Amino acid sequence: MSQAIDSFVSSNSGRFLEELNQFLRIPSISTSPEHVSDVAAAAEFVASSLKTAGLENVEIIPTERHPLVYADWLHAPGKPTVLCYGHYDVQPPDPLELWHTPPFEPTVRDGNLYARGSADDKGQMYMHVKAVEALFAVYGKLPINVKFLIEGEEEVGGASITKYVAANPAKLKADVALVSDTALYAEGIPTLCIGLRGLIYMEVEATGPMRDLHSGLYGGAAPNAVYGLIELLAKAKDAGGRIQIPGFYDQVAEPAPAEIASWKSLPFSEAEFLKKEVGASRLTGEADRMVLERVWSRPTLEVHGIAGGFTGAGAKTVIPATATAKVSMRMVPDQDPDQMYAAFEQWVADNTPAGIQTKVRKLSGGPAVIVNPEHPAIHQAAVAFKDIMNADTVFIRSGGSVPIVGDFAHHLGIPTVMMGLGLPDDGLHSPNEKFKLDNFYLGIRTVAHFFEKYGA
Amino acid sequence: MSQAIDSFVSSNSGRFLEELNQFLRIPSISTSPEHVSDVAAAAEFVASSLKTAGLENVEIIPTERHPLVYADWLHAPGKPTVLCYGHYDVQPPDPLELWHTPPFEPTVRDGNLYARGSADDKGQMYMHVKAVEALFAVYGKLPINVKFLIEGEEEVGGASITKYVAANPAKLKADVALVSDTALYAEGIPTLCIGLRGLIYMEVEATGPMRDLHSGLYGGAAPNAVYGLIELLAKAKDAGGRIQIPGFYDQVAEPAPAEIASWKSLPFSEAEFLKKEVGASRLTGEADRMVLERVWSRPTLEVHGIAGGFTGAGAKTVIPATATAKVSMRMVPDQDPDQMYAAFEQWVADNTPAGIQTKVRKLSGGPAVIVNPEHPAIHQAAVAFKDIMNADTVFIRSGGSVPIVGDFAHHLGIPTVMMGLGLPDDGLHSPNEKFKLDNFYLGIRTVAHFFEKYGA
Repeated sequence: MSQAIDSFVSSNSGRFLEELNQFLRIPSISTSPEHVSDVAAAAEFVASSLKTAGLENVEIIPTERHPLVYADWLHAPGKPTVLCYGHYDVQPPDPLELWHTPPFEPTVRDGNLYARGSADDKGQMYMHVKAVEALFAVYGKLPINVKFLIEGEEEVGGASITKYVAANPAKLKADVALVSDTALYAEGIPTLCIGLRGLIYMEVEATGPMRDLHSGLYGGAAPNAVYGLIELLAKAKDAGGRIQIPGFYDQVAEPAPAEIASWKSLPFSEAEFLKKEVGASRLTGEADRMVLERVWSRPTLEVHGIAGGFTGAGAKTVIPATATAKVSMRMVPDQDPDQMYAAFEQWVADNTPAGIQTKVRKLSGGPAVIVNPEHPAIHQAAVAFKDIMNADTVFIRSGGSVPIVGDFAHHLGIPTVMMGLGLPDDGLHSPNEKFKLDNFYLGIRTVAHFFEKYGA
Repeated sequence: MSQAIDSFVSSNSGRFLEELNQFLRIPSISTSPEHVSDVAAAAEFVASSLKTAGLENVEIIPTERHPLVYADWLHAPGKPTVLCYGHYDVQPPDPLELWHTPPFEPTVRDGNLYARGSADDKGQMYMHVKAVEALFAVYGKLPINVKFLIEGEEEVGGASITKYVAANPAKLKADVALVSDTALYAEGIPTLCIGLRGLIYMEVEATGPMRDLHSGLYGGAAPNAVYGLIELLAKAKDAGGRIQIPGFYDQVAEPAPAEIASWKSLPFSEAEFLKKEVGASRLTGEADRMVLERVWSRPTLEVHGIAGGFTGAGAKTVIPATATAKVSMRMVPDQDPDQMYAAFEQWVADNTPAGIQTKVRKLSGGPAVIVNPEHPAIHQAAVAFKDIMNADTVFIRSGGSVPIVGDFAHHLGIPTVMMGLGLPDDGLHSPNEKFKLDNFYLGIRTVAHFFEKYGA
């Protein structure tokens, strides 16, 4: 643990925050066609930050959609190479009216930095950049070799980086990847994530009559696309939350008893989780599984949105002709995305109500990932984390997806250190997303310390 | 049947159409707050048309929402009084992209007048006005007494006219009402409607977590408002379309065997109805009932629209906090709207899934209506229709609601002649709504002839 790094970080903390705020002011919403130029501006910002930090070969790589940003520093012969990943795109901020301060005007309140992308993932990606800058400032060089690959499509499926990684294994060759798009298990607990759920994101479209019909004249005899979609989707789960798609659970690998035992030892209050994080009247899902299992090692089927028919103010008496739902499946080891998608498509075909036609479109998909905690990089990351935070590092899973971790495993054959400094209540994808400022600085120090340990 | 009336109508047909087009160009969408001034302009247009036609005491009556228009001519002592009703407001035109020509730019194609409100109800209401104008032009007076009461809230529940009718029985005293907000059974078949379904229109709102949650971090344990609403609404019907709300069918009066027999004798092709009007792969509903029963004398539960969660382009992985559906029940004799609403509310409370909270709001409600075909006005209307159209008049029901018919029965104690010249494929409430131009002129002649017969 280097006193010099720590001093550099504290004496530059104001500047680091101001730079991050500039980054957060760019509304780089990758899913919105009207924000294409903002996404490009965010890529420029990243490239310029990497150059300033001391990295070389900085390049903005055009893709079919949003650009990638690459940079490296490879002057530590005989030392391992770390591939640093992050994403500069963000989720849409809606519903806007629920934000206390505007999503793209970063604001500090009570030690938290509020902005869309503060934790997911601009703030966390920026920790890597500032760790490199600190190491260069203090030592004039890095203790290891590094490559950076930053994308702008993480929130829309990450198609371009997947292609790029598959096509450029030599350029991206590394010993391990570093991703900080994850969270601490809880405040003050150094945490490495060693498992992620996969995700298949789909649209299901239902059509009924050829046009919206008057419900007085046709009601009772004409099929209703909205109701047809409702009837279909309701059949996806039983009252206990168990998913009814044939074969859905066949490939699910149960976590080892030791892993389950370690989860049971983590501080977790179901009452607090319900009250402070979820805020509903009760939790749902598989009642015979503990909550951490349900969100970490169990597959899900979720409807993220639905729209059809008349949804304006007031009344309109139509039998809607079409309706669409956004549906995803979160997958766990060893579920195969292609097989799961085929099973879902078949289930939709088999369960579509009479008079209704349905179509399924896959928007993105990637498998679950597990990494081995015995890998030297994971081990050194755990030690570095413990040194900086003064507490034992815990190994957890996350229910979210970081598809790139699967791509790194598949195409580059390397594991990923998932060392995130977010907190469970950061509100990712929600109004009032935040990142704890202390964790931003802790993260910079931890990454720098990890590089030192891993290079020693 | 008067040759003079017929000649007046044909020699003025171009002018009548041009005037109707002016009326149709006013986007008097009563449900949209941004169209309030258009609705007011439509009321002005109606008032001015009534004055021009020769009516007296024309008045625009302000209400809490959209104005009523009243006029009368009461100089036929000893003759009956007909209360002519219509509405000048229209449904929203969306989805706009499906219109072949803009909804508020009336266009004649193949003998049809395409515009929002052409058949429902501006064009049909205007037949009454032009019938009066023709009678005045030819005879200098009317064969009966008439009162006109035209509203601007029919498409949003008609609260103001209901209040007004209840409060002004003396002013509105009449022997019968005339409403043309209905359709011919088929091209060339003179048709009087003697039964209407009632309607309760509601919103159901579901809430789950306190905010939209990340489906990776919470999926499997947190309740989903969209899915909760889907699960709830799917329970409203069984696979055969039978509504599952306790007591839903208890008060349903079956039509008399003679009425059912007459429906069976009407020309009806289920295949054609399916193909030309509905345009789905098959019909739905109670399989043991013929289609005319399902749409005329059977109650329904319909979901007109649903919205919740992320519905934009692309992907957003949220567990939605809220979702809303527009739901209606069509009622038949002798179902009581208050009891039906209470039953629905109770059913929602009893069937809301765990972790979800629901709220039901009633937007409007009115009972079903049946009128007696033996009433002298109905009888003379049937004869007039037969005379003009050269075919026997049939008595049918309609699955739609004209709540004012119930108000006239309840508050004024009078039946209603429902003499509409629309056609089943007019596309009411749909894109490309139309009114057959020949029927517009036939309607003017039929109404004038009915007044002559009824006054004779």
